[in-house]
Amino acid sequence: MSKTVDFFWDPASTYSYLAATQIEDLARRCDAQINWKPFLLGKVFEATGNKMPAALPSKGKYLFRDARMWAKLYGVPFRFPKIFPLNSVLASRACLAAANQGKGVEFSLALLKAYWADGQDPSQPEVVSAIAGSVGLDGPALLAATQEPAVKDALRANTEEAIRRGAFGAPTFYVDEEMFWGNDRLGLLEAYLKGELS
Amino acid sequence: MSKTVDFFWDPASTYSYLAATQIEDLARRCDAQINWKPFLLGKVFEATGNKMPAALPSKGKYLFRDARMWAKLYGVPFRFPKIFPLNSVLASRACLAAANQGKGVEFSLALLKAYWADGQDPSQPEVVSAIAGSVGLDGPALLAATQEPAVKDALRANTEEAIRRGAFGAPTFYVDEEMFWGNDRLGLLEAYLKGELS
Repeated sequence: MSKTVDFFWDPASTYSYLAATQIEDLARRCDAQINWKPFLLGKVFEATGNKMPAALPSKGKYLFRDARMWAKLYGVPFRFPKIFPLNSVLASRACLAAANQGKGVEFSLALLKAYWADGQDPSQPEVVSAIAGSVGLDGPALLAATQEPAVKDALRANTEEAIRRGAFGAPTFYVDEEMFWGNDRLGLLEAYLKGELS
Repeated sequence: MSKTVDFFWDPASTYSYLAATQIEDLARRCDAQINWKPFLLGKVFEATGNKMPAALPSKGKYLFRDARMWAKLYGVPFRFPKIFPLNSVLASRACLAAANQGKGVEFSLALLKAYWADGQDPSQPEVVSAIAGSVGLDGPALLAATQEPAVKDALRANTEEAIRRGAFGAPTFYVDEEMFWGNDRLGLLEAYLKGELS
């Protein structure tokens, strides 16, 4: 029986980007399905009292080098964004709207790369529109869809669901009731999906 | 040329225990040397403004399950201590005193297991003495050595060195100028030592 992984992520989160580059390959190796669920990490921080890692200077300094090492390990491009932190509301809504058109994963990966490797600012509508075009979606139509109540509600619902299920950071993964926090838990998630931790 | 890994750890830290169970095997695979450096994590938190993970309730709840999964992955025993957090000053000094007698790694691993798997309380002198005996050291002599100024100074120096080098948590590893934070960075550390990240 194929397992489903709920993958809560925020375009503004460095480790969400890193994990996103790996998660579909992991799913293939484990015969699992990934349910991509963008959420608002800032709201999760508010609700739980957690803070972004860079709020602690020594941690922020380390995480910059750390992220570069993970990118090397994964063989994916990484360049720290000029615009940081990112207001990711529009970008996250766009990912949900793209999913409604069957291109959620493709668009989300393109958007993450635009921000985390190519120096683009996906808080800007014209940037989101261009990314949509690059994966064969109609940019202006996707932007219009980001303003639909159903799309706004879906983002809010994902955020509330993550908080309810115990998330305090990103990325956070769930398989049934089991939670995995962080890009650095992908190995543990894979072992769990393969039944190696029971 | 064999590399040296400075391994900063605290007996009171869950992830220090988990990493300690793996680090000597990792060193063998990488032809590296591990320089075990117990330090006072509480002082590092004070100096950096960081807090123990369990200070955030949602994180504390997760970390308990997380640690159990890592222990399963590694195949090592784990039982959350009754006495928590641990005042680890005596235990850490004892590890340094044991190292002066050529049994630092053996004693440290025995002490970590006593606390993180066997429900013992190594803030108590008689417990430390018994652990010393279990690895062929003279317990009363080791306890006496924990009160030597040179041993106390060594623990303080390790702590100050870690803060100076940018540590804000435990375990923290250094290879030359490169820093790795957390049990969950062992894979990255291994790739680095094998020259796979350059």
